[in-house]
Amino acid sequence: MSVDPTRELHPDVAVLAPLLGTWEGSGTGEYPTIEDFSYLESITFAHVGKPFVAYTQRTKHPDTGAPMHAESGYLRVPRPGSIEIVMAQPTGLTEVYEGAVVGGDAPLVIDVRSTVIGATHTAKEVTITERTISLTGDELHYTFRMAAVGHPLRHHLSATLRRQ
Amino acid sequence: MSVDPTRELHPDVAVLAPLLGTWEGSGTGEYPTIEDFSYLESITFAHVGKPFVAYTQRTKHPDTGAPMHAESGYLRVPRPGSIEIVMAQPTGLTEVYEGAVVGGDAPLVIDVRSTVIGATHTAKEVTITERTISLTGDELHYTFRMAAVGHPLRHHLSATLRRQ
Repeated sequence: MSVDPTRELHPDVAVLAPLLGTWEGSGTGEYPTIEDFSYLESITFAHVGKPFVAYTQRTKHPDTGAPMHAESGYLRVPRPGSIEIVMAQPTGLTEVYEGAVVGGDAPLVIDVRSTVIGATHTAKEVTITERTISLTGDELHYTFRMAAVGHPLRHHLSATLRRQ
Repeated sequence: MSVDPTRELHPDVAVLAPLLGTWEGSGTGEYPTIEDFSYLESITFAHVGKPFVAYTQRTKHPDTGAPMHAESGYLRVPRPGSIEIVMAQPTGLTEVYEGAVVGGDAPLVIDVRSTVIGATHTAKEVTITERTISLTGDELHYTFRMAAVGHPLRHHLSATLRRQ
């Protein structure tokens, strides 16, 4: 889904305007069950004039360039200050998030927690996920926390990307 | 996510090879709560060499070209004959599907039913969804059934697309 220059951003998601475009950068990950790792990442936020913003992401290995993770979904702003995010992951998971969005004259900050996590029978057990996305100028930073495979909620991912 | 010609399709999802590429066509929709409608549709199935196939879809109004629906997700084949699909929808829904896939020397047929439907607080209530996707030569056909907003499971969408 690309940005259609002939369509204006829907006013419901106007607060998300600074996200639109493509971002590239790098991140690091950790969890008790795996070795620490790092990754290169590309994120795109796009819209078609409807009251949502589409999100796609992919990461690759910093040395080999091999594809690592990918996910895709949509952001909605049901009322000012609130945000809903739905997402699908090729690991067999779906996530529904709800939380807060601050923006406008202030730097954009999105802070959400999972309300529903769906899983196929072969997916790893993930019980809670939280994401914080903050944007300052042309720099996007996010953190991702999760409770999974028996571990309580804890830091998993952190990355910084720049507008392309 | 585009097809990377330098990476071979992961053998776990080899049965899905005939889907890879972009498909365009048209469909019709009906449900007791809405007026019948028709749409133009574009679907892309892609891979990056990992054990999943990425799916994106968008529809537009046949007369005005205005964007209508969109959705994105991933298909996995955990064992021969079985398929898992995870999907996110900008209406605030996520879907986890499990079911059967038949292919190889026979025409490809995917038949799945939702096992988990996630929803944001502002999404419409959808309790069960079913999809059947069949491919004969360069023609892809699907039907979509759903139980939603108090109605039992019934036909909602049907479309036929051709390989581009």
